[in-house]
Amino acid sequence: MAEPSHPEEASARRLMIISSDCHAGARPETYREYLPERFRASADAWWQAFEREMAKRAGTFFDQDSQEGFDKSRSVLEGGTAGEWDPAIRTRELEADGIVGEVIFPQMAPFGAGLMQYRTPIDPEQNLAGIRAYNRWLADLCNANPGRHAGVALINAEDVEDAVGEIRWAREHGLWGGVLIPASTGEHPYYHDPRYEPIWAICEDLDMPVHTHSGWSPDYGDAPASTAMFISEVSWYAHRPFTALLWSGVFERHPRLKLVMTEQGNSWVHDALRMFERHYDSPYFKYFHKDLSLRPREYFERQCFIGASFLHPEDCAERHRIGTQKLMWGSDYPHLEGTWPNTMDSLRRTFSEVPEDELRAMLGGNAAKVFGFDVGRLEQAAQKIGPTLEEIRASA
Amino acid sequence: MAEPSHPEEASARRLMIISSDCHAGARPETYREYLPERFRASADAWWQAFEREMAKRAGTFFDQDSQEGFDKSRSVLEGGTAGEWDPAIRTRELEADGIVGEVIFPQMAPFGAGLMQYRTPIDPEQNLAGIRAYNRWLADLCNANPGRHAGVALINAEDVEDAVGEIRWAREHGLWGGVLIPASTGEHPYYHDPRYEPIWAICEDLDMPVHTHSGWSPDYGDAPASTAMFISEVSWYAHRPFTALLWSGVFERHPRLKLVMTEQGNSWVHDALRMFERHYDSPYFKYFHKDLSLRPREYFERQCFIGASFLHPEDCAERHRIGTQKLMWGSDYPHLEGTWPNTMDSLRRTFSEVPEDELRAMLGGNAAKVFGFDVGRLEQAAQKIGPTLEEIRASA
Repeated sequence: MAEPSHPEEASARRLMIISSDCHAGARPETYREYLPERFRASADAWWQAFEREMAKRAGTFFDQDSQEGFDKSRSVLEGGTAGEWDPAIRTRELEADGIVGEVIFPQMAPFGAGLMQYRTPIDPEQNLAGIRAYNRWLADLCNANPGRHAGVALINAEDVEDAVGEIRWAREHGLWGGVLIPASTGEHPYYHDPRYEPIWAICEDLDMPVHTHSGWSPDYGDAPASTAMFISEVSWYAHRPFTALLWSGVFERHPRLKLVMTEQGNSWVHDALRMFERHYDSPYFKYFHKDLSLRPREYFERQCFIGASFLHPEDCAERHRIGTQKLMWGSDYPHLEGTWPNTMDSLRRTFSEVPEDELRAMLGGNAAKVFGFDVGRLEQAAQKIGPTLEEIRASA
Repeated sequence: MAEPSHPEEASARRLMIISSDCHAGARPETYREYLPERFRASADAWWQAFEREMAKRAGTFFDQDSQEGFDKSRSVLEGGTAGEWDPAIRTRELEADGIVGEVIFPQMAPFGAGLMQYRTPIDPEQNLAGIRAYNRWLADLCNANPGRHAGVALINAEDVEDAVGEIRWAREHGLWGGVLIPASTGEHPYYHDPRYEPIWAICEDLDMPVHTHSGWSPDYGDAPASTAMFISEVSWYAHRPFTALLWSGVFERHPRLKLVMTEQGNSWVHDALRMFERHYDSPYFKYFHKDLSLRPREYFERQCFIGASFLHPEDCAERHRIGTQKLMWGSDYPHLEGTWPNTMDSLRRTFSEVPEDELRAMLGGNAAKVFGFDVGRLEQAAQKIGPTLEEIRASA
């Protein structure tokens, strides 16, 4: 087992923990207030259809109440977790779990906006209204408690200028966590296409990290194995944008752009980089990297980060294949498959043998740098509610 | 470096090499003879459109003539390699490369049949005619030299009873190499759906291995990075069927069915199995394996094989993560990105430090068992044209 790098400091300073993977969402009736009058009736109808769809999934992963591993009193899909939308409860629950800062991803937002964007067909005008309602609601949530919530804005792939406008709005209204690009672009070309260039440009200019997060998959229909297919494949679809930005030269043209890939597993990174390095070295591939000044792994090193969520102990043991400076832990609050409200147990299971500097980086330091959290402010909070190094090293 | 397991035998017996990844295809005018009269004019038009599409790809990977790494005199896309369709030349070229048996996958066949099935929209009736033309032509090629060519039959995902009929025809007419299932099912449900059950049943009954092979991808359009996207993603789409057959219980219901996954990289196997094992152990996933009596890795061990093509030396070094009993080498003849006509150099680069028993298994023994090659017959040929162990261990 490795020694802490500064043993005399170890017990003195509590850990500043930032969760790089949390979720928030309003209730349908709350989004109503953030929608222009003309979209409200259709939004009500949309939510009703969504509820019917959820009801069909009884007995599956998505019906968490029916699953043995879940505590039924805390179902988020039923809206039973008020911290999902209430900033005071949210901060209290995060702090009770040892967390002082967070990056916020959506739940399902009106008109199919959010993590599953393009999973079902959209009406572009309605979908944009849903995106704007979510962003405005999220800005209010984040601004209720400044500096603690890095809210991530939504966009879609319909009109690139609309997306650019939304990114600008988000940056100016307190959503400094960055921008979630949908894992699918629907009927539009994928992210290797030049049409998205204005999005990369403004995200670089405004220092808005670009995020991908698992959620989208093709429609597997209602065969019994459909949910197992979803769980097995959803991560891969979430990191396709890395491939697209790499080979289309987005990292080359926008050297300050950051790409953050969250809740999509970790072990794929090593294999993907190795495959891309082999492609790069193949004589048949020369033509395809003629405009790239760096190698695949060098772009990754310079511009990419992994929202590792709660790492499997095996992934933690292999962390140096990716680099501890690239990995950001997350609790997935308030999802029931995440670590909340038992984050300490999870941290002990995964991190008990990790040296102090690496641990501080993965649990908060890396995220603080990527998102520009005010470290002085978070450290102050952390010294009240964060765990000590000894608490994480105690046997689980 | 490991010693050969039986040093005294090492130089005595030449290696029986079976390539588990070769390709064959006729010229358009030859397929014409295998098509019913009423499809001939439309087939001519289809090939003309295909040629125009190829011409648009000048300067890309698919235009192999323009690529530095390729020997221009041997372009297969231009039809310059007669071994692609001539059985006598084919056998001569394979033997000159040290190979006594092969598994044959298609080139582009009429009406979009073949490796890129469903890459462009099809007319179901025409496509089925194209599939039948290829299968009948391939049977003639294989039967010209019995026991040496394990031809793999084509099917599509349109009418399952048609596919079953085609599989039966193939088994009865000398295509004992198995059946290629397209990597995409077009507009039809994917392979986790029960509609394909008759295909798995007949393949198990007739001992026809089910193959997947890289080739299909989504349409990336004509953006500059499209080909790089294709090369980076095509392997993943090729092994999606493994996920589908696993979780939908196909391996459970058909314990003698074999799945062979060819030319799609190798390092993904370890990660995929690890991910599926973790899913299996998750409390939230119990519901999805309630009808499975084995674990993911156990089904893989029992029923799956990797057509590893020419392994990267790094993959060879990691071969025990997959198991040498699972890996089958292939030359990709007559493709120019394969090892032909310099197979010996490639074998030396990858296998020079591999113990004899593992080497014999990966280079031929495993394929002999999976496909039921007549080993006595192949060994006889191998003792004339196969390399010795010393030749492979000589420094490259």
